[in-house]
Amino acid sequence: MIRKYHLDEAEMPRQWYNLAADLPTPMQPPLTGDGKPISPDMLAPVFPMNLIEQEVSQQRWIQIPEEVRDILLRWRPTPLRRAVDLEKYLQTPARIYFKDESVSPPGSHKPNTAVPQAWYNKQFGIKRLTTETGAGQWGCALAFACTLIGLECKVFMVRISFDQKPLRKLMMKVWGADCIASPSSETEAGRKILAEYPDTPGSLGIAISEAVEAAVCDSSGQTRYSLGSVLNHVLLHQTVIGQEAQRQLQLAGEKRPDIVVGCAGGGSNFAGLAFPFTLDKINGADIRIIPVEPSACPTMTKAPFVYDFGDTAGMTPLLPMFSLGHSFVPAPIHAGGLRYHGIAPMISQAIVEGLLEPRAIDQVRCYQSAMTWARTEGSICAPETSHAIACVIEEALRAKEEGKEKVILFCYSGHGLMDLTGYDKFLSGQLSEIGFSDEEMQRNLKPLEHLPKPAANKTGKW
Amino acid sequence: MIRKYHLDEAEMPRQWYNLAADLPTPMQPPLTGDGKPISPDMLAPVFPMNLIEQEVSQQRWIQIPEEVRDILLRWRPTPLRRAVDLEKYLQTPARIYFKDESVSPPGSHKPNTAVPQAWYNKQFGIKRLTTETGAGQWGCALAFACTLIGLECKVFMVRISFDQKPLRKLMMKVWGADCIASPSSETEAGRKILAEYPDTPGSLGIAISEAVEAAVCDSSGQTRYSLGSVLNHVLLHQTVIGQEAQRQLQLAGEKRPDIVVGCAGGGSNFAGLAFPFTLDKINGADIRIIPVEPSACPTMTKAPFVYDFGDTAGMTPLLPMFSLGHSFVPAPIHAGGLRYHGIAPMISQAIVEGLLEPRAIDQVRCYQSAMTWARTEGSICAPETSHAIACVIEEALRAKEEGKEKVILFCYSGHGLMDLTGYDKFLSGQLSEIGFSDEEMQRNLKPLEHLPKPAANKTGKW
Repeated sequence: MIRKYHLDEAEMPRQWYNLAADLPTPMQPPLTGDGKPISPDMLAPVFPMNLIEQEVSQQRWIQIPEEVRDILLRWRPTPLRRAVDLEKYLQTPARIYFKDESVSPPGSHKPNTAVPQAWYNKQFGIKRLTTETGAGQWGCALAFACTLIGLECKVFMVRISFDQKPLRKLMMKVWGADCIASPSSETEAGRKILAEYPDTPGSLGIAISEAVEAAVCDSSGQTRYSLGSVLNHVLLHQTVIGQEAQRQLQLAGEKRPDIVVGCAGGGSNFAGLAFPFTLDKINGADIRIIPVEPSACPTMTKAPFVYDFGDTAGMTPLLPMFSLGHSFVPAPIHAGGLRYHGIAPMISQAIVEGLLEPRAIDQVRCYQSAMTWARTEGSICAPETSHAIACVIEEALRAKEEGKEKVILFCYSGHGLMDLTGYDKFLSGQLSEIGFSDEEMQRNLKPLEHLPKPAANKTGKW
Repeated sequence: MIRKYHLDEAEMPRQWYNLAADLPTPMQPPLTGDGKPISPDMLAPVFPMNLIEQEVSQQRWIQIPEEVRDILLRWRPTPLRRAVDLEKYLQTPARIYFKDESVSPPGSHKPNTAVPQAWYNKQFGIKRLTTETGAGQWGCALAFACTLIGLECKVFMVRISFDQKPLRKLMMKVWGADCIASPSSETEAGRKILAEYPDTPGSLGIAISEAVEAAVCDSSGQTRYSLGSVLNHVLLHQTVIGQEAQRQLQLAGEKRPDIVVGCAGGGSNFAGLAFPFTLDKINGADIRIIPVEPSACPTMTKAPFVYDFGDTAGMTPLLPMFSLGHSFVPAPIHAGGLRYHGIAPMISQAIVEGLLEPRAIDQVRCYQSAMTWARTEGSICAPETSHAIACVIEEALRAKEEGKEKVILFCYSGHGLMDLTGYDKFLSGQLSEIGFSDEEMQRNLKPLEHLPKPAANKTGKW
């Protein structure tokens, strides 16, 4: 039984796929805080113009620059693998394939966008990037990309992670990035918080504020900010994943998947795998496409489609997305990459169109699934990735009940070697199910009431 | 420029290569403490008979059981990669290839032997394996193999590593192994040490004693001991590395390498890559083969060829090898896998025959080389692997001086994601060069003086 499907380097995609070109209803534009459409110029202090153009592009296929492709080829095309041993263990007639994005040097899908973002900034004459990072996966990817491309990199890392996860910080150091705990005394936003709450553990919202401020307030004009998920251009860069998977499934003799699964926090690894298949679905293919989120942060399955800020402090434009409210602080589950109050606008629109079937799964079942994976397939997945695996196991068992030979494809977004403390807590019985109360949601959504509402889709649905 | 050469699963080797069949002078046998040859029966309480047969085999090619092959196929064949960006950075005419053994789930070459060892034990009716581990690389690999094959696994981990490297311990836990700090109160050897030195940080020698005792004293007779390097059968299992590399170099259009490099502690990753090429050299090919060790533990470059114990406590048979003396405690360099007083007998004999050119390199230069690697090739190597990279950089620069298009091949034995504290110390200027004094060697070799001496090779050389 063949377990791995490789593509030659020549077969790595030469274009990114932009789902915006094919959505039945055009996406709503981002707005300023007082409800006016954002113009590209207004984003210029934050991002370079070449990336802003990608952010607003309606073009279906966008060429990958040769130099970017050349760097991605260090680890791409990534293998498509078949989870033969999980299939055997579950005694399922389903055939389970996974796209292994854990093989990049930083260990996740994140460098697929870190590399082009760094490259476009370099082309635009930028010398330094700032970003925030929670658990550290994204900070590592951007540090990696910047060292290869020759940019300085400054990472504001949420203080509690900075203290608890020293290894990620060290990875960034090896790749030459300057990683500091947030809140810091280097920004106005940070100093303000520190004065008021000297012992704060920090938050992603604060770190974003600091990173944006550090970029826009650099008087040299040579610093910009970089974001690792949510935005259109970030999702775009990830679509190499799904395009490769399409070719590799053909190598495996499969016409197409019946079910496509990915975990979704901001949504970039999910979109990267799923969007090329979403186009197939728009064109009539019978595919179920499932983004999976934690029960503790049920953005796609419980929250309304609204205009909301991307950050806690309200410094970003208003984005049309499913949101639990920008002041919502998700419970401290170990899947740090899935603790986000919103979800990418492009994924939100695809949900509104009925193209995706979001699902929420509790962390305890996710860790049980991760353990089943580790003891059958043999590798240790990231806590985020365990959400995809939990859903795949559900679907494989359903295929068994139904006696159907379904083809299930999922994104193995990252390894869990830097996240072993979560496993330890699970194995020691210290983790419990974390739900979500409707009252809490109502409380967090209140501050959104004065904001404009995004329009419905063509069929009047949202 | 192509960077990766993959083999199909069907092309994974079906046999292991046994250099013992081709050494110009037959290897010396292991001896008992009082100088008599060890018979296979005497090893039976420690190892299963099927592995003992491999240990003493003179057969050139040994079939890999299909079930073992099937498990190795989870990550094998591993990619052969070309270090294009390091070449560019060094401006060398050399072409540098590396066999990437870091892609296994435990992150190193170790599971290449952990899997067959667990499988042969299972075949022999064994229920449980014991082993020791220093930094934890080997303990993780055996835990991984045992969970896939269905054996219990008990790992005695040197206490200082147990306390300082919690992540490796957690990996073993995820794979279901029981990992305890050594010295422990579970063995006579451990209790004795604890009574005398309650605060001891432990040592590999003590941990070996405990693991062997736990195996041979289990009255059920269903427990055996497993070793991750040094022995003939361990090196044998690693030869899939070099055989795959031979085929992949052909894919890359290279006739053969001019230089083959690997780091060597006990010697297994080096032997795995180098032995198939050593056969080519015996048959007349012009290849330089270089095992690299730390200057702080210069077994191959400074020590004599003697009979010595494999462990500190003197519980193992006497092995014919280059040794700094079994009581030698190497300096606490970060490349824990290279802190061994001896080197595999089969490598020792190949050195005596003049087939290998050992080299010692200091840890500071190794970390400098690892940083060059991380910032050109982009990945973070294990501290052990950095010794191979330092040698490769020396040879690539020599090729540049000589203006020669040499083909250099090395073993990228493991990633360094669990070993980042060494990088941190290096980057903070806390590491210094560690030499080795001849006086110290004399002192450590004294206890060997009464032991038999191994015979010279055919040409009278050693």
